Amino acid sequence: MKCIPIIRSELKNHGITEGISEMIVTTGFEHPNAAPIGIIWKNDRLFLRLFKGSRTYRNLEHENFFAGNITSNPLVYVRSAFTDLSRSNFVYISFEIPDASDPENVKQVDVPVLSNGDGFVIFQCMQRKYSENALFIDVCPVCSKMTARSAFGTFINRGFNSVIDATVHLTRYRETHDPKYIELIRYHQGIIQRCGRPEDKEALLFLKKKLIEFSEETL
Amino acid sequence: MKCIPIIRSELKNHGITEGISEMIVTTGFEHPNAAPIGIIWKNDRLFLRLFKGSRTYRNLEHENFFAGNITSNPLVYVRSAFTDLSRSNFVYISFEIPDASDPENVKQVDVPVLSNGDGFVIFQCMQRKYSENALFIDVCPVCSKMTARSAFGTFINRGFNSVIDATVHLTRYRETHDPKYIELIRYHQGIIQRCGRPEDKEALLFLKKKLIEFSEETL
Repeated sequence: MKCIPIIRSELKNHGITEGISEMIVTTGFEHPNAAPIGIIWKNDRLFLRLFKGSRTYRNLEHENFFAGNITSNPLVYVRSAFTDLSRSNFVYISFEIPDASDPENVKQVDVPVLSNGDGFVIFQCMQRKYSENALFIDVCPVCSKMTARSAFGTFINRGFNSVIDATVHLTRYRETHDPKYIELIRYHQGIIQRCGRPEDKEALLFLKKKLIEFSEETL
Repeated sequence: MKCIPIIRSELKNHGITEGISEMIVTTGFEHPNAAPIGIIWKNDRLFLRLFKGSRTYRNLEHENFFAGNITSNPLVYVRSAFTDLSRSNFVYISFEIPDASDPENVKQVDVPVLSNGDGFVIFQCMQRKYSENALFIDVCPVCSKMTARSAFGTFINRGFNSVIDATVHLTRYRETHDPKYIELIRYHQGIIQRCGRPEDKEALLFLKKKLIEFSEETL
């Protein structure tokens, strides 16, 4: 694969913004996995915070490359947050990087990406730090690729945005069972119903089913 | 200007989604004006709903073309919602359309667009319908143009998205002074502070100042 090398000062040109950039992180040299994760750009540091117990956490403990995928498909967000995507959602891409042990040579790296994403950025894991419940990894963008499909930007759809917010709240509800998250999900449900695309409403249905499932766990 | 003609079935390729697509609508043959407005795509109909009293309402009562601008600049959203953007924020673009009265010929149309936007779609106003408080205009996309800057898509920033939501709530607060909108703005403020870019935080400050201004009106 040919992808565009990224210069650190040009992060913005590759869709990475200060604050938190939400992406679908794909990992797994052998068994591909996807999860919605925000990459944090704060005080000139670019890093991931991964919670213990997640597949991404386990994979990135020893894998040094992963992809951050861009997609406007809300179903990929909600499904990858709460279930395993099937193998057909992934494709492995190969790219070459300078070989650290032999600078004259390059070595080939394979990383899974979403097969129907709008584009991706490949990141390299640099330093890892463990806290009690999380793994912090400083990351460095290596290269990026955009599919033609998204050559034209997209107007903002508040319904899609609310799917992302509701997904975040539902992951917290699953952990804490705090009813305040149900209230917040209800608020975003209203926006999805008013402003969303058909696929956003389908994603909402998925979230509502999962919410019932997680609620029953406490009974 | 050369821009890409739009075939109705290809709306999605031009960034227009089913449901509501939020854009900065620019109008005004003589005095350019900008306002954040959602274009509604529902049941195969593409239309605007403009509230009485707004500048966009007055302009589009008699103007037949306008632009829907894409921008990831939150300050343009909040400023155009509550103040008049200065003349330097606009540039007029000219394009040719078939002359309805003389199909052999073309006529030139000038429309204001944002000078620093990421791209725009030109729309033509078709049918207008008036209700007591609003003007409904069926619109038809004519052509679109994307600037190179956004050739790469952007990851989702929940902070930016929350600026849009908070702006919507503040416009409603201005009308109704219902304190429930203050609660919602506060919720989005939390997301902007956690996830937003520096410019999203600057937009939040602007919204908070306006909120105080509108609150004082009721004292």
